[in-house]
Amino acid sequence: MGEYFVNENKLSDYPLLKSLTAPLQIRQYNLKQLAALAREVRQFLIDSVCETGGHFSSNMGTVELTVALFHVFDFLTDRIVWDVGHQAYSHKVLTGRWKQFSTLRQYNGISGFLKRDESPYDHFDAGHSSTSISAALGMAKARDLQKQDFACIALIGDGSMTAGMAFESLNQAGYIKAKQFLVILNDNDMSINPNVGSLQGYLNHIVSGQYYHKWQDRIEKAIEAIPINNLRRLLARLVNDGQAIKRIAIPGLLFEDLGFRYIGPVNGHDIKTLTRSLAEAKEKMQDGPVLLHVQTKKGYGYTPSEQNPLKWHGISPSDTAFEEAEQASADPDKPAPPSYTKVFGETLTALADKDERIVGISAAMLDGTGLNIFQKAHPDRCFDVGIAEQHAITFAAGLAVQGLRPVCAIYSTFLQRGFDQVFHDVCLQNLPVTFALDRAGLVGADGPTHHGLYDIAYLRCLPNIILMAPKDEDEFRHMLFTAIYSDHPAAIRYPRGSAIGVPLRDPLLPMSIGKSELLLEGSDIVLIALGTMVHPALEAARNLESDGISCAVINARFAKPLDKEMITAWARKTGRVATIEEGCLPGGFGSAIAECLADAGIRAALLRCGVSDHLVQHGPTDKLLQIEGLNGEEIANRARTFINYSQQT
Amino acid sequence: MGEYFVNENKLSDYPLLKSLTAPLQIRQYNLKQLAALAREVRQFLIDSVCETGGHFSSNMGTVELTVALFHVFDFLTDRIVWDVGHQAYSHKVLTGRWKQFSTLRQYNGISGFLKRDESPYDHFDAGHSSTSISAALGMAKARDLQKQDFACIALIGDGSMTAGMAFESLNQAGYIKAKQFLVILNDNDMSINPNVGSLQGYLNHIVSGQYYHKWQDRIEKAIEAIPINNLRRLLARLVNDGQAIKRIAIPGLLFEDLGFRYIGPVNGHDIKTLTRSLAEAKEKMQDGPVLLHVQTKKGYGYTPSEQNPLKWHGISPSDTAFEEAEQASADPDKPAPPSYTKVFGETLTALADKDERIVGISAAMLDGTGLNIFQKAHPDRCFDVGIAEQHAITFAAGLAVQGLRPVCAIYSTFLQRGFDQVFHDVCLQNLPVTFALDRAGLVGADGPTHHGLYDIAYLRCLPNIILMAPKDEDEFRHMLFTAIYSDHPAAIRYPRGSAIGVPLRDPLLPMSIGKSELLLEGSDIVLIALGTMVHPALEAARNLESDGISCAVINARFAKPLDKEMITAWARKTGRVATIEEGCLPGGFGSAIAECLADAGIRAALLRCGVSDHLVQHGPTDKLLQIEGLNGEEIANRARTFINYSQQT
Repeated sequence: MGEYFVNENKLSDYPLLKSLTAPLQIRQYNLKQLAALAREVRQFLIDSVCETGGHFSSNMGTVELTVALFHVFDFLTDRIVWDVGHQAYSHKVLTGRWKQFSTLRQYNGISGFLKRDESPYDHFDAGHSSTSISAALGMAKARDLQKQDFACIALIGDGSMTAGMAFESLNQAGYIKAKQFLVILNDNDMSINPNVGSLQGYLNHIVSGQYYHKWQDRIEKAIEAIPINNLRRLLARLVNDGQAIKRIAIPGLLFEDLGFRYIGPVNGHDIKTLTRSLAEAKEKMQDGPVLLHVQTKKGYGYTPSEQNPLKWHGISPSDTAFEEAEQASADPDKPAPPSYTKVFGETLTALADKDERIVGISAAMLDGTGLNIFQKAHPDRCFDVGIAEQHAITFAAGLAVQGLRPVCAIYSTFLQRGFDQVFHDVCLQNLPVTFALDRAGLVGADGPTHHGLYDIAYLRCLPNIILMAPKDEDEFRHMLFTAIYSDHPAAIRYPRGSAIGVPLRDPLLPMSIGKSELLLEGSDIVLIALGTMVHPALEAARNLESDGISCAVINARFAKPLDKEMITAWARKTGRVATIEEGCLPGGFGSAIAECLADAGIRAALLRCGVSDHLVQHGPTDKLLQIEGLNGEEIANRARTFINYSQQT
Repeated sequence: MGEYFVNENKLSDYPLLKSLTAPLQIRQYNLKQLAALAREVRQFLIDSVCETGGHFSSNMGTVELTVALFHVFDFLTDRIVWDVGHQAYSHKVLTGRWKQFSTLRQYNGISGFLKRDESPYDHFDAGHSSTSISAALGMAKARDLQKQDFACIALIGDGSMTAGMAFESLNQAGYIKAKQFLVILNDNDMSINPNVGSLQGYLNHIVSGQYYHKWQDRIEKAIEAIPINNLRRLLARLVNDGQAIKRIAIPGLLFEDLGFRYIGPVNGHDIKTLTRSLAEAKEKMQDGPVLLHVQTKKGYGYTPSEQNPLKWHGISPSDTAFEEAEQASADPDKPAPPSYTKVFGETLTALADKDERIVGISAAMLDGTGLNIFQKAHPDRCFDVGIAEQHAITFAAGLAVQGLRPVCAIYSTFLQRGFDQVFHDVCLQNLPVTFALDRAGLVGADGPTHHGLYDIAYLRCLPNIILMAPKDEDEFRHMLFTAIYSDHPAAIRYPRGSAIGVPLRDPLLPMSIGKSELLLEGSDIVLIALGTMVHPALEAARNLESDGISCAVINARFAKPLDKEMITAWARKTGRVATIEEGCLPGGFGSAIAECLADAGIRAALLRCGVSDHLVQHGPTDKLLQIEGLNGEEIANRARTFINYSQQT
């Protein structure tokens, strides 16, 4: 870990945490004690997250705020919903979980997000952004109906505020004048990437004082129009003095217009200011909803992360400190395979070099999706719309009707936010919008909220869409080319992390829509694998072959439309079909094969391998795949049992 | 039609429409001609929509605005996206489709919404709300990238503005300072039901002048604090005069804060004001995005609809004028069956009478879903959150974690907007939220955007959810009871329109989760039907029986979890399974049965009846069902062929 202090066995070095047996104690602390506690929590997080990996920058920014919250509120009765939840490590630390921090995001360890199952202080689960205000408002109304008495708080970042559902919830909260309801806007001028959107501009204006200057201009113009000379001069002097204007130019008027009392902006790293502002909010929220605007700095208190909060958004256990780190290969002569993310960014850029119609769209995930590579080359054709998947997709549809070829790069799990727009704005109009679904399948440490397991099921039911998954990065590139020029809605699902390391063939060529690839011929069973499962299927086939079981292997390439000809032919030949996919079993790829066989009147035995219908927890992807029976060995074992069983029947 | 003038054969009575060979002519009209044209368009709509049925009130409100738009813009080059599109009948009339209006919403007739296939003047398809700003912004950016020159306009109602995606798109448009980009806010203070939300309160304040008074107070308070007596008195006089304040208290500041130039509010029924304001907007949008706030009156110009715009939102061809009309039975002794919607509202109310934990949530569809009945009985426990399905669902999740039993009443097609929230906020936390999915299946005249065909596929892939569909209204009531007390996320899908007319049994009892009902025993084939298809399946069985084919019939009740025991037992007994569902075939109920049979190692022949993978157009539901092969006769025909075929193989 180089220069930074890390000590795994020094839990006893945190005397304040050690003495903290219940968060309620914090309510009695004086300012000095609170500041000391904050310092210790920060040090603990630096020590422990550098060791375990996890979200870093946003957690550095909320230490003082969390300590102040526990001083002013009692979260055994008061409710707090942390938006996304990856900025709530301090909350975890203060609620008795600091000793388990070495298990953070590990299999069977504590989650990187909040979990109601994990602690009575975790009041709502999240992982996707912008749900906190809605959830806290629901809690507040439930409280009122049950005639209970406690505060409900949503803590939301400025990035999460760009999502429409945040607006939807503000709109209702202001309307129903929800009491004892507080929204804390944690404004660090960042989501993962720097923030976009005019709301952010507005917040920046408040924080920088430009908002006040704009009002000064506005009032000066009004004064200029006054016909009485003396009066005009007097007023001008008054305006320069500034006191009167400050009474008019209230910051946060936008929130006031939406029915909130606005407090702020306040320094989110000054314990005294924070506790005072929270107390003020606590009093004002007796009358109706309050928005407290807190200014924090991502990565605060740790120089490397302050200087590069993006790099330090999430860190891996190694000190390369980058979620997307491409680790150096053990063999220096053989370069490590690139990530699918990188291959996507580079291929799209190359295609766009030759075709001006290609544009890229991201929902606040330029770096995560590799679109940052495209942005560098084609800044005018790259759109980051904020955490706004719904808008991103319909915006793409608008681009497409005017003749462009938009590519929306959105994680599989986040495309769920734009499901209706995929259907209503893209598929119904049969528009050539490409969806690049990064993080499809199991994603590892982020866990159930982030696993991309449902896209096959929720997309293949929609009309007009083409749905593909590549077996390796070269096929991926040709699929991207195929999707963009297919003249239809098309989605490509590909996994998080490293690709296979195969040579990349140029030029890119269109693939036949709905045509699969026969990789192996065999007589006892046909393994039909999709995307990431093609190589494990080949491994299983080799494994089975050593037992004298002859396997055909098909790389499906398309989950929709299916290669019915190939599939039915081999199902007939072998009489036994096994499907393998890194996705949910209900409605998934195997389900599509079951439909295909039934429709063709083929009564072959069918084994569906995939993620069964349950929540998959967080942990290393390899381990999760093994548990789900989705590596070569497990597939072979299941196929063996299946063949034995189907011979008996 | 009684007192109102309707004349089907008087198309020649519309001299101005007759003389209008191209919309471009309208650009040359003077104010008098424009007003005359508007009058004629309104008369035409009254005459023709009363005859054909269709959306009425919102179309009455936009006549002058549409005429003025065609005067100021040229929609062969300029682009306009009508939000939802059910307020664009005037647009259809002025673009050459008035002669086809007798086919409105009929099978093979013109659509009630805009369709790119229908006219070069229809630039984007819609049916769901709040997509227009995103789509128009996409068009504007495509235009800029292609160095073209035309205006892009989104016309959106104040109701649609409550949806988060409208905010997402404003946030980007203001940020990128989109030029030649205009949002027209058609403010009629209504969606289908009266509007909710603090944004609406804000707009009302502007329109009523209260916004101005609020500013007056604010400025007066600032003046009171001025220490110089004379100056304070002078200023107070000036404030009473009002001119100076009007320069400060700019209406629409909220939109200005989001980066838009605001114009308005303007009278949307005065052609002169409209053309002048549109011309002003056209000029100002050269520099950046403009929002034009137009005040209209739903149902304007036709007394009955002005007085009751809700009743006249959509009208049926008969003068009972209500989408949800329960038509009087031909047999006066036999009362007509109630609608599922009404049964839902009454049952939920009765349940809530006995259990204070039950709360109802609607996304701007109180009347459409029958929640209006519940609202009357339990106003404090009924929440209409506006067109905000995302927020509605997470708000419900917040209510549920605090111990309540929320019921979200949302049309099948609109739940798509909240898909991620169903997954992330309800299913992952396994919360007892009930989804009442009205309009599941084919919905008739509203067509492809509104058919509720995908819910089985997109819900059954999610963990923890229970998914049911009743065969009749009595079963529906017991299912509602079962869902609310299941302690899990649960959805019930039921169709638009009349129920069966069966007796309603009390008390309500919990059904066994995942247990189906055997309706008929038989030996040649088992028909497994879901929800609305149970009665057609019974009809098919009777039909087949007359041919000597013995059918077992199962009422599935649950699409998830499936009654595996019953299904596999009868599949084994008969060797032939036919599934019947009013939903999409890919990933649907039949697909679930295919999975079940495969997993059980049963190689029965399987016939899946449902809506195949294509767009179903608008038209009478009976006709559409017939085309899709989903009535008793068609099912029997298909089963007969299937049996013959499967005997050969």
